[in-house]
Amino acid sequence: MNNEISNEKMNIVSIIMGSDSDLPIMKDAMEFLDKMNIKYEVNILSVHRNPKQAISYAKEINDKKIKIIIAGAGGAAHLPGIFAAYCNVPVIGVPIKTKTLNGIDSLYSIVQMPSGVPVATVGINNSKNAAILATKILALNNNELQKGLADYKKELEEKGYIKNEKINIIGYEKYLKEMNGEI
Amino acid sequence: MNNEISNEKMNIVSIIMGSDSDLPIMKDAMEFLDKMNIKYEVNILSVHRNPKQAISYAKEINDKKIKIIIAGAGGAAHLPGIFAAYCNVPVIGVPIKTKTLNGIDSLYSIVQMPSGVPVATVGINNSKNAAILATKILALNNNELQKGLADYKKELEEKGYIKNEKINIIGYEKYLKEMNGEI
Amino acid sequence: MNNEISNEKMNIVSIIMGSDSDLPIMKDAMEFLDKMNIKYEVNILSVHRNPKQAISYAKEINDKKIKIIIAGAGGAAHLPGIFAAYCNVPVIGVPIKTKTLNGIDSLYSIVQMPSGVPVATVGINNSKNAAILATKILALNNNELQKGLADYKKELEEKGYIKNEKINIIGYEKYLKEMNGEI
Amino acid sequence: MNNEISNEKMNIVSIIMGSDSDLPIMKDAMEFLDKMNIKYEVNILSVHRNPKQAISYAKEINDKKIKIIIAGAGGAAHLPGIFAAYCNVPVIGVPIKTKTLNGIDSLYSIVQMPSGVPVATVGINNSKNAAILATKILALNNNELQKGLADYKKELEEKGYIKNEKINIIGYEKYLKEMNGEI
Amino acid sequence: MNNEISNEKMNIVSIIMGSDSDLPIMKDAMEFLDKMNIKYEVNILSVHRNPKQAISYAKEINDKKIKIIIAGAGGAAHLPGIFAAYCNVPVIGVPIKTKTLNGIDSLYSIVQMPSGVPVATVGINNSKNAAILATKILALNNNELQKGLADYKKELEEKGYIKNEKINIIGYEKYLKEMNGEI
Amino acid sequence: MNNEISNEKMNIVSIIMGSDSDLPIMKDAMEFLDKMNIKYEVNILSVHRNPKQAISYAKEINDKKIKIIIAGAGGAAHLPGIFAAYCNVPVIGVPIKTKTLNGIDSLYSIVQMPSGVPVATVGINNSKNAAILATKILALNNNELQKGLADYKKELEEKGYIKNEKINIIGYEKYLKEMNGEI
Amino acid sequence: MNNEISNEKMNIVSIIMGSDSDLPIMKDAMEFLDKMNIKYEVNILSVHRNPKQAISYAKEINDKKIKIIIAGAGGAAHLPGIFAAYCNVPVIGVPIKTKTLNGIDSLYSIVQMPSGVPVATVGINNSKNAAILATKILALNNNELQKGLADYKKELEEKGYIKNEKINIIGYEKYLKEMNGEI
Amino acid sequence: MNNEISNEKMNIVSIIMGSDSDLPIMKDAMEFLDKMNIKYEVNILSVHRNPKQAISYAKEINDKKIKIIIAGAGGAAHLPGIFAAYCNVPVIGVPIKTKTLNGIDSLYSIVQMPSGVPVATVGINNSKNAAILATKILALNNNELQKGLADYKKELEEKGYIKNEKINIIGYEKYLKEMNGEI
Repeated sequence: MNNEISNEKMNIVSIIMGSDSDLPIMKDAMEFLDKMNIKYEVNILSVHRNPKQAISYAKEINDKKIKIIIAGAGGAAHLPGIFAAYCNVPVIGVPIKTKTLNGIDSLYSIVQMPSGVPVATVGINNSKNAAILATKILALNNNELQKGLADYKKELEEKGYIKNEKINIIGYEKYLKEMNGEI
Repeated sequence: MNNEISNEKMNIVSIIMGSDSDLPIMKDAMEFLDKMNIKYEVNILSVHRNPKQAISYAKEINDKKIKIIIAGAGGAAHLPGIFAAYCNVPVIGVPIKTKTLNGIDSLYSIVQMPSGVPVATVGINNSKNAAILATKILALNNNELQKGLADYKKELEEKGYIKNEKINIIGYEKYLKEMNGEI
Repeated sequence: MNNEISNEKMNIVSIIMGSDSDLPIMKDAMEFLDKMNIKYEVNILSVHRNPKQAISYAKEINDKKIKIIIAGAGGAAHLPGIFAAYCNVPVIGVPIKTKTLNGIDSLYSIVQMPSGVPVATVGINNSKNAAILATKILALNNNELQKGLADYKKELEEKGYIKNEKINIIGYEKYLKEMNGEI
Repeated sequence: MNNEISNEKMNIVSIIMGSDSDLPIMKDAMEFLDKMNIKYEVNILSVHRNPKQAISYAKEINDKKIKIIIAGAGGAAHLPGIFAAYCNVPVIGVPIKTKTLNGIDSLYSIVQMPSGVPVATVGINNSKNAAILATKILALNNNELQKGLADYKKELEEKGYIKNEKINIIGYEKYLKEMNGEI
Repeated sequence: MNNEISNEKMNIVSIIMGSDSDLPIMKDAMEFLDKMNIKYEVNILSVHRNPKQAISYAKEINDKKIKIIIAGAGGAAHLPGIFAAYCNVPVIGVPIKTKTLNGIDSLYSIVQMPSGVPVATVGINNSKNAAILATKILALNNNELQKGLADYKKELEEKGYIKNEKINIIGYEKYLKEMNGEI
Repeated sequence: MNNEISNEKMNIVSIIMGSDSDLPIMKDAMEFLDKMNIKYEVNILSVHRNPKQAISYAKEINDKKIKIIIAGAGGAAHLPGIFAAYCNVPVIGVPIKTKTLNGIDSLYSIVQMPSGVPVATVGINNSKNAAILATKILALNNNELQKGLADYKKELEEKGYIKNEKINIIGYEKYLKEMNGEI
Repeated sequence: MNNEISNEKMNIVSIIMGSDSDLPIMKDAMEFLDKMNIKYEVNILSVHRNPKQAISYAKEINDKKIKIIIAGAGGAAHLPGIFAAYCNVPVIGVPIKTKTLNGIDSLYSIVQMPSGVPVATVGINNSKNAAILATKILALNNNELQKGLADYKKELEEKGYIKNEKINIIGYEKYLKEMNGEI
Repeated sequence: MNNEISNEKMNIVSIIMGSDSDLPIMKDAMEFLDKMNIKYEVNILSVHRNPKQAISYAKEINDKKIKIIIAGAGGAAHLPGIFAAYCNVPVIGVPIKTKTLNGIDSLYSIVQMPSGVPVATVGINNSKNAAILATKILALNNNELQKGLADYKKELEEKGYIKNEKINIIGYEKYLKEMNGEI
C-alpha cells in the first residue's frame, strides 16, 4: 500500500508536508530546487493522521540517496521533529501560518526541539528559504550548485541595483504608481 | 421556563456553547457524533448572560445519562470551567476564535484551570477534535464505538494514502491546479 | 532491549514523560492516582531521542489494558500528539513549563493538534489535573472511582469552607501572618 | 455550613479571592479601604473548587448593603465574571500574576467578558487600584469619601513634590545610594 | 476656542475618544446609555494631538455634574489614564482594536496603570460593556436605573431562554441555516 | 555600479527601505518631509539581498550632508541597526507590518538594539511619525523648521477643535453617517 | 511649590522618569551624558500621580534651553507620550521592565504613538542607548560631541578587538573561567 | 589590527557570537564539536559595535575552508543574518535568551529572514543543537562523522533505555529522590 511513495533513487531532497493545504506555500521550495536542477520528491504525509505511512517513509530515507529533508507543517507541527528523530540527514522545518495563531504555534512546535535532535527552522511560510538553505548545504560539495547559488546571489544583487536605480531615476511617486498598476 | 432544555434521557453527550455565534464552529462536533451514532443534546447557555439557566442545567446533568460535556466558548470563556466545577463527568473545552485576540483569550481562559478542576482542552475552533475525544472516551466501554473509531482511523489513513499516491502520480503542479479548481 | 518497559498487565493508566526533568512536575499525577487506587505505569520516553522505544511502547499500549495515557512534555512537545496518533485510548497532555518560553511553546505544541487526532490538554505544569481528568473518565464506568471523586470533591469543598471560616474568624491579617509562618 | 461567611450587614465592599495564595496580593486592597474607613468583608471563595459556596454567597450579596465587589483571581480566572453575572453591583477584577504565564491568562480571563456582563479590570496584581476605584465609585455619593480621596490625591502629589525636590537637591547618585541603603 | 465642548450641565456621563475613527466602536456605549435614559456628552479629544483641549476639558469635568467618564483609545492609549489622573470621578477605559497589534497595545496601555490611579478597563472594543458598567455604578444610588438594569438583565435571560428553546425545537441544522439566511 | 544611488549633495534626510513592498507605507514619510521642505533621498537597499550596495551606501553617508536616516524594514529587520552601526547620524527605524507576525518581529528586531548602538524606533507602519521625529531633530537648529512644526501642531490642534465642534453640533449619529458616506 | 524643579538654564537634556524605582535603570543615561560632558537635569515626575507638576514642567521646557527629553516609564507608560505632546523638542522613550509583563506593556505604551506625535523609543531598560541617541542628535551641530562619539565608537571597536584577540589567544575555556572568576 | 582573528586554515566550522556574555550558552556547541573531532574557530564579533571587524571576517570566510557558521546572538540579533548575507556557506542561528523578552526578540530577529537569505534557526539557547545540525550537514560527505553521529544517536537511545529501565525498577519516588540528591 506504501508503494505510492516516490522511490526515484536519484532524488537528493525530500519535501514533505503534513497536509495538501500546505502545498500552495510549499511549492516555492519546489520551484527553487527546479531552478537549481536539484532532484527532489514530494510527499504529503501526516505523522498524526497516518503515522505508519509517515514513519515507514522516514525509515526508508536512510536507505536512499536523500541528503536533505524539507518539512512543512502547521499548528502542533510534529512532522519536522519526528523526521529529525528518525533520519540521519538534516531536516529543515517550515512553519506554516495557521488561521488562529498565525503560525506562532507552528514556529514554536518546530524550533524549540530538545537538545540532541535539531530542526533547522526558517521563517513562517518561507519555504523558498528552506530550498535555498538546502542548496547551500548541498553546494558544500558540489561546484555546480555553488555556481548556481552564486548566480542566484548575483540575480538578487542585480535586482537590488535595478530597483534602486529605477526609484532614483523616476522618483518614488512614479515607482509607486507603477507598482499599483496605475501607469 | 427551563423546560425548553432537552431532556431526552438517552443522550450521552451534552454539547453546550456560550452563544449561537459559536454554532458554525461547534457544528463539526455534532456531525462527528452523528457519524458515530452517538446521541447528544445541544444547548446554548451563557453562564454570564443567563447564569441561572446554565447552572440549573449543569445541576441536572448529574441526574442524566450524560457521560461527557463538550463546551465551546470564546473570550473570557467560563462555560467549560463552571460545568467542570458542577458536573461529575469530564468536560471537553473548545476555545472559540475571537475577533480581537484570535482565541488566545479563550484558550487561556479554558486551559489554565486551577488544580482540582480540569477541563480537557482541544485546539482553537477545533470542535471536531472535541467530538473525537469524546468518542474515544466513550469507546473505552463500547465495542461499537471502538469499531467506529477504527473505521474513522482507517479512513484518515486511506485519505493519506490516496492524496500521497495522487501527488506522486500527477505531480505537485497538477495537484495544485486541481485544488485551485483550475482543471 | 525493550523489556525494561513496565508490562504489568493490570495497569490502566500509562504516565509517560519526555525527560526525567519532567518528573518533579509529573509526580503530582502519580500521587493523585495513588490516592484513587488507580494502577498505573510510569515511563520516560523521548519520541525525539529514542523514537523506536517510544513508538514500540505506543504500539504495545493497544494490546494492554491501558485505558488512558497521561503524557507530559516541554518545548516542541510531540510526545502526547504521537501517542494520540498511535493509540486508541484518550491521551491527556501536560505542557511542561520551559526556561525560555514559560511553557507557551509546550502548550501550543500539545493543544493545537490537527483535526482527527485530539489531545486533551490541561494547564501548564498541571499534572494533577491530568490525573483528575483521567479519573473522571475512568469513573464513567466505575462506581468506586465515582465515590473516590465524590470524596475528593467534598474534600475540596470542605477545605473551602474551612479556609473561609478561618479568615472570617481570625481576620485576614492574622491569616496572612500564619501563612507566612510569623505566628 | 455556609454561616461562616461574613454577614456583617454594614459592610459595603465585598472582597473575594479564589485562593488564599492570593491574599498577599489582595491585602493592599484591604489596607486602602481601612485608610478610607470603608467597611468591607473578606471571603476566600473558589467558583471552581466550591461553586455552591461561591454562588450561594453571590446570591446573598444582592440582599446585602454591599455596593461593590472586588474579586481577585489567577489563571483561568472565572470568579469576577461569575459574580458579575449574578450580582447587580459593579465587580472590579484583579488579575493575579501566575507562575507560568505571568498573569496574562488571568488578565484575559477577566477583561475579555462578553457583551452584557462587564468586569472593571485593573492591572495585574494591582489590588490597591481596585480599592481606589471602589472608593471613587462610592465617593460619588459620599462627601466624606470625596474628602478622603482628595486627601489621598494630595498625598500622592506631595510625595511627588518631595521626591523630586530631594533628587534636585541631593542629586541622583546620592538619592540612589539612599534607596539602596548605602547611606 | 474651547466653547465647542458640550457644556450641558445635566449630563452625568462623559464619553470621550481619542479619534473619530473610534466612533463606530464607541457608538454602542451611546446606544446603551440612551436605552437607560442616561444623559451623556460626547467629545473627540486627543491628549496627544491637542493636549490643551483635552486637559482643559478634563479640568472642567470636576466642576460639572459628570459622574463617570468612558474613554476609548487605541495604540499607545493614554486618554483614559490622563483623565483618571485629573478627574475625581471613575474612568472606564475601552481599548480599541488596532490594525497592527489587534488592540493588545491599547489594552496594556490602559489596564496597566500605576498604583494610585486606576482605570476600570473593559474588553477590547467592548464599549457597550463600558456603558453597562457605568450604569451599574450610577444605579447604586438610583432606583430607576436599578430597574433599567433589572429589565436589561431579564432581557438577556429571556433571549437566552428563547434561543435555547428554539435550538431545542428546530434543531441545530435549521437554526444554523436561519442564521445564515438560508431559510 | 553603485552610481545609481542618489548623490544629491544637498539632501539632509536619507530614507531607506529593505524592499519596494515597503514603499506604500514609507511614502507617508516622504510626503511629510515634502510638506516641511526638507530635502531627502530615497533608496531601496537590502542589507540581506545586496549587502555590498547597502553598506557601501552606509559608508558614503558619513561623507554627505545627510543628518538623519529613516529606515523602514520588516521581519528580521536588520537595515536600521546596521546603518546605526555604520553611520554617525541618528537612525530612525520604522517596523513594517508583516503578514505572519503583524510586525512584532519587525518591532523587536529594530527596537531591542544592544547597548552602544541605538535606533530611534517609532510605531509599526508609522513612517509619518519617523518624518516628524526627523523634523523635530532638524528643527533644533533651524528656525524655519521650528515654524513648520509649530504650524503643523496648530493644524493638528485645529483639526481637533473642528472635529469636536462638529460632533457637538451635529451629534454622533450624523457624524458617523457622514464618515460612512451615508449622507 | 513647583520651584524644586531644576531650573538650571544651561542644561540641554532633560531626563525624567515616572517613579524613583526607575532610577537604577535610568542612571546609565546620566553616566553616559556625564562622559560626554552634556549638561542635564533629572526630575521624577508622574503624569498620573502628579499631573499638574509634570505638565507644568512640560510647559516650562519650551522656554528653556533643553534640546532633548529622555523619559523612562513602566507599565501603562504615558510620560514620554505626554511630553511629546507638549514639548517641541524630540522625546526619547525608555520602556522600563515591569514585574508582571516584563516591559512589553511599557514598550507598547511608548512606541505605538498615534500619527502626529512621535516618541523615539529605545529597547526595554536600555537608558544608555537613549543617552547615546541624544548625543547623536546633539552632535549634529556640535563638533566636540562628534569627537566624543567618535571616541566612544573607537572605544567600542577597541573593546571588540581586545575581547576577540583574547579569546583567540587564551581559548574559550580559559576566557569563560575568567568571566566566572574561576581564575 | 584584524590579525587577532583565528586564521587556522583547517577549521571547518566558525562559531561567532555577538558578545562574550553569550559564551556560557555557546560553549555547548564547542563541546559537541570537540566530541566529534570537528575543528572550529571561535570569534566574538559584534556587527553593531564593531561592524568593520565583523564584516571583514565575514568576507574572509569565503576564502577559508569554513563550511558552516554557527552564530549566537540576543535581542535585535543581526549577526546570523548579516553573515548569511555575506557568506556562501550555511549559517545556523542560535537565539540567546534575553533578560527582558526571554529571547523571543532574538528568535524573531533570527528566524524571520527575508526570502533569499535563510538562517537555519535552532531553539532559544540551544547551541548544542546548532553543533549537532552542523555535524549532520558535514556528515553528508564524511563517513567518520556519520559514524560519530550514529554513536551519538546510540548514546541518546542508550540513555533513554537506561533511564527508563531505572524508573521501572526503582520506582519514581526513589528516582526522584536520587535526582534531588536525597539518597
